[in-house]
Amino acid sequence: MKKHIAVVSGDGIGPDIIREALKVLGAVGAKFGHTFTTSSYLAGGVALDAVGIPLPKETLEGCKNSDSVLLGAVGGPKWDTLASNLRPEKALLGLRGGLGLFCNLRPAILYKQLSDACPLKAEIIGEGLDLMVVRELTGGIYFGERGRSDDAAYDTMAYTVTEIERILRKAFEIAQKRSKRLCSVDKANILNTSQLWREVIKRVQVEYPDVEVSHLYVDNAAMQLVRNPGQFDVIVTENMFGDILSDEASQITGSIGMLPSASLREDSFGMYEPIHGSAPDIAGKDLANPIATILSVAMMLRYSFGLQAEAESIEKAVSKVLDGGYRTADIYTPGMKKVGTNDMGSLIAQAL
Amino acid sequence: MKKHIAVVSGDGIGPDIIREALKVLGAVGAKFGHTFTTSSYLAGGVALDAVGIPLPKETLEGCKNSDSVLLGAVGGPKWDTLASNLRPEKALLGLRGGLGLFCNLRPAILYKQLSDACPLKAEIIGEGLDLMVVRELTGGIYFGERGRSDDAAYDTMAYTVTEIERILRKAFEIAQKRSKRLCSVDKANILNTSQLWREVIKRVQVEYPDVEVSHLYVDNAAMQLVRNPGQFDVIVTENMFGDILSDEASQITGSIGMLPSASLREDSFGMYEPIHGSAPDIAGKDLANPIATILSVAMMLRYSFGLQAEAESIEKAVSKVLDGGYRTADIYTPGMKKVGTNDMGSLIAQAL
Ligand SMILES: CC(C)[C@H](C(=O)O)[C@@H](O)C(=O)O
Ligand SMILES: CC(C)[C@H](C(=O)O)[C@@H](O)C(=O)O
Repeated sequence: MKKHIAVVSGDGIGPDIIREALKVLGAVGAKFGHTFTTSSYLAGGVALDAVGIPLPKETLEGCKNSDSVLLGAVGGPKWDTLASNLRPEKALLGLRGGLGLFCNLRPAILYKQLSDACPLKAEIIGEGLDLMVVRELTGGIYFGERGRSDDAAYDTMAYTVTEIERILRKAFEIAQKRSKRLCSVDKANILNTSQLWREVIKRVQVEYPDVEVSHLYVDNAAMQLVRNPGQFDVIVTENMFGDILSDEASQITGSIGMLPSASLREDSFGMYEPIHGSAPDIAGKDLANPIATILSVAMMLRYSFGLQAEAESIEKAVSKVLDGGYRTADIYTPGMKKVGTNDMGSLIAQAL
Repeated sequence: MKKHIAVVSGDGIGPDIIREALKVLGAVGAKFGHTFTTSSYLAGGVALDAVGIPLPKETLEGCKNSDSVLLGAVGGPKWDTLASNLRPEKALLGLRGGLGLFCNLRPAILYKQLSDACPLKAEIIGEGLDLMVVRELTGGIYFGERGRSDDAAYDTMAYTVTEIERILRKAFEIAQKRSKRLCSVDKANILNTSQLWREVIKRVQVEYPDVEVSHLYVDNAAMQLVRNPGQFDVIVTENMFGDILSDEASQITGSIGMLPSASLREDSFGMYEPIHGSAPDIAGKDLANPIATILSVAMMLRYSFGLQAEAESIEKAVSKVLDGGYRTADIYTPGMKKVGTNDMGSLIAQAL
C-alpha cells in the first residue's frame, strides 16, 4: 500500500513526539511492505511566527491533498495574548472545520502497567477501563454565530438534524463493534439543541436494534465517570460536552500521556493526534512521552487505511515496551527504567 | 429574631427531607430564642399535578414575600415526557430567575467520617477536601435566546458585563473569607463570553489585591478536579460550566447525600436546597438522607440571617451524630448504626 501523510508537528513538544511517531510509522512500513510518504506543514504558533497567521492556506490545502493528517500539538503561552482570531487554537478549529472532521474518537483506556497512576480507588476501577468518547467536532458552540459589544457577548450552540444524525450513526457503528451499549449525553432538561438531539437519536436508533441506548444529562455524566466509569462503553455527545467529558475520562484512566485520538469524516480520511497538549516547558528536552502520538499512528492505520494487523502490531509493541518496564518521566514510578522521548520511540519501533 | 420562610417541598423525597430540616430549624429556634414561621408552596411535579403548571404565581409571590426559601427537590420520571415548558425543572429556573438568585454556592466537602465513600485514592485526597464552587445562576445558556425549527435548534450563551461583575464580586468576597485563592474557569480559547469574562475579572481583581487569581479552561478544570482536587479552594464559573463542575466536585467528595447549596442575590435573601435530586424510588419510605437539607438550613442561618453560632451548632450536631456512628442507608457501611430519615433528623435536633 502507498499512502501520503500530511504532518503538522506544531508547537512545544509537537516536533519531539512527531519524530518518534514517524520512526514507528517507517518501521511498520518496512515490516509490512507499505510505502508511507510525508509532507510537513506549519500550523499554530510556529505558523504565527513564520507567516503571521495560525493556519496558512498551504497547510489546509496540503492536508486536503493527502490521505490523512498526523498532528503533534499546537499552542503555548507565547501566543496566549494574541487577538482571538490569531490564536494557535484557531489552527485546530480551521483544520477540523476545513477538513470536515465531524467525528472525534477519544478512547480512554487504563493501561494495566500504569494502574498505579489511576486516581480512582482500585475497587471502582475493577477489571480496568476501556471506553470510547465519540465527540461531535464541527458543530455546536465552537462554530455557531457569536458576537461582542463593549458590555456584552454571546456564543451560539446550534445543531441541524443532519449534523446530529451523522455523528450518531458513527457512534452506533462503533457501539456495534464493541459492547453494543451507547450512552448519549446531553442537557435535554434545558437546551433546545439537546431536545433535538434526543428526537434524532430516537429515530436513528430503530436502525440499530442491537444497540442498547441510554441517556444521561451532562452534569450527571460528569459524576458517573468518577463514581463508576466501568458502566460506560461508548459515549456520544455534542462538541463542548465532549471536550469536557473526554478530558475527564482520560484523566480518570491516569494514562493521559498515552491516549490518542482520531478526527474523521464520512470517508476514510482522518486527522490523528495525541489528546495531550504542547507542554512547552519540556519541549526539545527529550522528556516528552511519544506514546500517545505513536498510538495515534495506530489509529490512522486502522481507521484511514484499514490496516488492522499493522495497527495492532503498534499497540502490542507499546504494551511490550511497558511490560519491559520502560517509562518516560511522566509515567515513571520507582523500580522502572526511565527513558527519554527518543529511546522510547526506538524501543517501540524495535519491538514491532 | 423573627423570620418567615417559604417552604417548597417539591417531589419525591422532598417532603421527607424538608420535614426533618424543619424539625432541626424548630429546635434551633427554641434553643437560641428565635421565631421561625413557615408557609408551604407548590412547585415542580406536585404543582403540575395540582394546578397544571410547574411554578404557580402564588409560589413565586409567596417566596418573594418571605425572608428566605427552603427547597426540597423537584422532578421525576412521571413528568419527564411533558413538553419542555411544563417540565418540573422549569420551576427551578423560574424561582432562580424570578427571585434574581444569581449566585449559587455549592460547597464540596469530604466528611472525614465518610472518607471510605470517596472514589479517589487516599494519597490524592490527603488531608481531606473542602472547596466552594461559585456558579453564576441566572445567565448564560440557561436563560439565553433559543429557537427551534423542524430540522435545527439553537441555544444562546449570553453574558453582560454587569452579570459577570456581580458574580465575580461575590466570589472574591468568599475567597477573602477563605484561603484567598480564586480559580476562574472558562473556555476563553473558544468562547466570546469567556473572553469577556476574563476582561471583567482582570478589571475587578485590582479591587481585591489580597486574592490570588488563576484561570483554567473548563476541560482542564474537569481533569484537575480528579487529578488533584486539593489545589482548589474557591472556583467561580458561568452557569453551565458550574452545573457540570459542581456535580463532579461533589461526587469526588463521595459525600453527595450530605451537600447543601445556597442561591443568593445582592441582599441577604436566598434559596437553600440540597444538591441531590428527588429520588422518587425511595420517596416516603423513611430511607432518604436528610443531612444535605439540614445543612442547607445551616447555610440559610449563616447567609440570610447572619446567625453564625446557630449555623455552626447545626454543623456540629451533624458531625456529632456521624461520630456516633449513625448512618442513613445511602452512607451506611458495615459496623455503623443504620437509621431512617426520621430518626436521623431527630438525632441531629437532639444533638444541638
Ligand atoms: C485547544 C482547544 C480549542 C481544543 C478544544 O476545545 O476542542 C482542545 O481542548 C481539544 O479538546 O482538542
Ligand atoms: C435540574 C437542572 C435544571 C438543574 C440545573 O441544571 O441547573 C440541576 O442540575 C442543578 O444543578 O440544580
